[in-house]
Amino acid sequence: MAVEIKELTSRSENYAQWYNDLVIKADLAENSAVRGCMVIKPYGYAIWEKIQRQLDDMFKETGHVNAYFPLFIPKSFLSKEADHVEGFAKECAVVTHYRLKNDPNGKGVVVDPEAKLEEELIVRPTSETIIWSTYRNWIQSYRDLPILVNQWANVVRWEMRTRLFLRTAEFLWQEGHTAHATEAEAIEEAEKMLNVYAEFAENYMAVPVLKGIKSANERFAGALNTYCIEALMQDGKALQAGTSHFLGQNFAKAFDVQFIDKEGKRDYVWATSWGVSTRLMGALIMAHSDDNGLVLPPKLAPYQVVIVPIYKNDEQLAKIDEKVFKVLKDLKDLNISVKYDNSQNKKPGWKFAEYELKGVPVRLAIGARDLENGTIEAARRDTLTKETVSVDNIADYVKNLLDEIQKNIYQKAFDFRAANTISVDSYEEFKEKIEAGGFILAHWDGTTETEERIKDETKATIRCIPFDDDKTPGKCMVTGKPSAQRVVFARAY
Amino acid sequence: MAVEIKELTSRSENYAQWYNDLVIKADLAENSAVRGCMVIKPYGYAIWEKIQRQLDDMFKETGHVNAYFPLFIPKSFLSKEADHVEGFAKECAVVTHYRLKNDPNGKGVVVDPEAKLEEELIVRPTSETIIWSTYRNWIQSYRDLPILVNQWANVVRWEMRTRLFLRTAEFLWQEGHTAHATEAEAIEEAEKMLNVYAEFAENYMAVPVLKGIKSANERFAGALNTYCIEALMQDGKALQAGTSHFLGQNFAKAFDVQFIDKEGKRDYVWATSWGVSTRLMGALIMAHSDDNGLVLPPKLAPYQVVIVPIYKNDEQLAKIDEKVFKVLKDLKDLNISVKYDNSQNKKPGWKFAEYELKGVPVRLAIGARDLENGTIEAARRDTLTKETVSVDNIADYVKNLLDEIQKNIYQKAFDFRAANTISVDSYEEFKEKIEAGGFILAHWDGTTETEERIKDETKATIRCIPFDDDKTPGKCMVTGKPSAQRVVFARAY
Repeated sequence: MAVEIKELTSRSENYAQWYNDLVIKADLAENSAVRGCMVIKPYGYAIWEKIQRQLDDMFKETGHVNAYFPLFIPKSFLSKEADHVEGFAKECAVVTHYRLKNDPNGKGVVVDPEAKLEEELIVRPTSETIIWSTYRNWIQSYRDLPILVNQWANVVRWEMRTRLFLRTAEFLWQEGHTAHATEAEAIEEAEKMLNVYAEFAENYMAVPVLKGIKSANERFAGALNTYCIEALMQDGKALQAGTSHFLGQNFAKAFDVQFIDKEGKRDYVWATSWGVSTRLMGALIMAHSDDNGLVLPPKLAPYQVVIVPIYKNDEQLAKIDEKVFKVLKDLKDLNISVKYDNSQNKKPGWKFAEYELKGVPVRLAIGARDLENGTIEAARRDTLTKETVSVDNIADYVKNLLDEIQKNIYQKAFDFRAANTISVDSYEEFKEKIEAGGFILAHWDGTTETEERIKDETKATIRCIPFDDDKTPGKCMVTGKPSAQRVVFARAY
Repeated sequence: MAVEIKELTSRSENYAQWYNDLVIKADLAENSAVRGCMVIKPYGYAIWEKIQRQLDDMFKETGHVNAYFPLFIPKSFLSKEADHVEGFAKECAVVTHYRLKNDPNGKGVVVDPEAKLEEELIVRPTSETIIWSTYRNWIQSYRDLPILVNQWANVVRWEMRTRLFLRTAEFLWQEGHTAHATEAEAIEEAEKMLNVYAEFAENYMAVPVLKGIKSANERFAGALNTYCIEALMQDGKALQAGTSHFLGQNFAKAFDVQFIDKEGKRDYVWATSWGVSTRLMGALIMAHSDDNGLVLPPKLAPYQVVIVPIYKNDEQLAKIDEKVFKVLKDLKDLNISVKYDNSQNKKPGWKFAEYELKGVPVRLAIGARDLENGTIEAARRDTLTKETVSVDNIADYVKNLLDEIQKNIYQKAFDFRAANTISVDSYEEFKEKIEAGGFILAHWDGTTETEERIKDETKATIRCIPFDDDKTPGKCMVTGKPSAQRVVFARAY
């Protein structure tokens, strides 16, 4: 039933090409006229809105509020926190002028050389610096703490090699920036938000994630500790899906943010930051989709159900319409989002392929014979199976089916990860197994030197030092030195 | 009951200072370290989120979808639509470089001179150009039309004199960009969205607005017609609260966006764009607030009700808490948002002043005697009156009261506008009356020359050529030439 023009490269043939085809052909996003910046198309943006709405609710339930800080950061701010600068303040868009003027030669507009900024402004790559310069005025005493603020925003990092959703110069994200009176409270916050991310990934995106902390080498620039969730894609590569940072007092010291504690003593404020981005779209797409197109978890699908009428003439369509309008009402009463596609300029086969490509979880088809029999055909996107059922209880049937699909997609991804997670004890075996992809649990001596050697020789990085796995000590697979526990290696996006 | 530190300048003393004090002291927004850019604080952002959510629902109900386009616009794009360039593509933030590097002298970071962009990028002041360059690939035939897309985004216009919410270098907004097969359909769309804005302003913001079209001089750069809604602030100045533009085929021609119509003929696509911004926050604040602080319409208040307990000891508080928890539940069951402030480190008087300042529509206070009597005190923010009522039906009482407040705030603003709208027939009278502020309906000969003379001499501009008012012809108050109808003049923000 596939339609020629929309055919995808298969995953086995070329996974990277499959991904790219899918993003384009399912109308999720496309490259723009501006190098490295994407256009998020309405269907892709509708998924992002679902992600945003759910995360925003979860942030608010955990006591956070939203605010908005400037797009621009004075260049000098980026010099204030040494590790932060060292780590990634470099590949940024720099604003140097604030005015255009008509080209004296009549060729449109040119930059007005007289409108040069005294200090250059950097388009935010992340907002710790501008936010902590603001918090300085918000915080005097422990009574002003904690500050639990989140921002939904666009950020820019001048990536040289970009891929839609996975790595783009401009991307959309949320960044939480919290301020606390004690170290313990800040650590608790960083861990709490990691758990929020993990819960979201597993229960909404249906993507199982490993929780853990980053090695020093992979830590966020300026953080004392970076917590992360790591997901496994179908090609065996890992994808970092969210990070939460315990920043200690680094930014408070850089921006001189002190407070008077309950005992009347001055101290620097403790900080966290945490973020997820439109990269989650990449994880969502790659974790579940197949050679026929997107597979979306019902909880994040822009519409969960599509209904396609099958008819020979207007009279039949009118009768089907009548029946479907009742079904639509029943589905909406159960808070199920549904699209009825009775457009006349497309054939049912085209529609079937289109909604398969777009990952609509459930497709209902109804024809003249169904009207006679009181039936309707229900097809699942995840298993590509279908069943003819009674139309009378279709809303309840669909509701259960959506739950079942949400669970099944998660379980499938979970089983895939389980089948692609192994332990190895020798570096030889590691080098062999890493070629097949997947998560590899191995002992490591804790040094950046060994970590970088492994990366250079195998392209694998330490994805995280996991929380939940085996804590048995052992010996580093490379150097034989003592290792506190196995860590998770993978090649990564 | 006012608390010294939060005292506002009164409106009569200095309206501009009152506004600024209010924005700062009610924790709505503040100036940032970046010239002209504001920080929107959590309480202010919560109001903006309510505005966004409601408008977004209204856009979706009228068939629109959201998408996202790049922050940056290649400089050459701004040269493509001549009027657009002429009109306002000048005061913009210009990105010229894409990398920083460590200062060789060890003083932080400097711009890497080797990382100069071949073509400068402009931070979007509005997105017509980048969006129409994208639509070129989206549109081949009439079947691809209409495109009904909206974007929520930040934009930058390098304003020299800025005021929080009213005029800032960076601001948040939505911009709708639609593409149509016919002129009539595009005009219908532009008018439809003007009506959506007017409905939102009147029914949610409780701000009455005049609908009309702009004179050629005040038209959006690149538009054939600009529709607008104009509101009157308490100081007698007008504020443009939203605009909707009929762009004709100008942008389609500039970016060569053609389609095949039903008859198989090629034609350029017809366009509209429409937007409202965080400027609405300024309108909301200035339309209703008083010398005690904000007055918020219930439909946009972050919380509609605050409950303050009045107690002498922990035992009393415990009993009050118990009673209030039931009230909270009843209010929430009616979808009323409520905050219970039983914090112990602030006195009731401080709380009363604080929530008055923040414009919470209804304040409930409950003390030991109320418990005995089965009563609770309900105070209205809009009228500053209070009433002791039975606690048993308090949720229903509050629900009705909120409706009443929403209506009353609108009516008050409506009456104010009516009292400050006059007709004048001579330019002498105009010059005298304009000093007192308000809308002045007067005849004008339709020329830019006369319009500019009036502006130079009186600082008043034509706010709109109104739809709904008297269409009787007359003679221009300045030149005596024929005038088709009275137009609305005012000094404006």
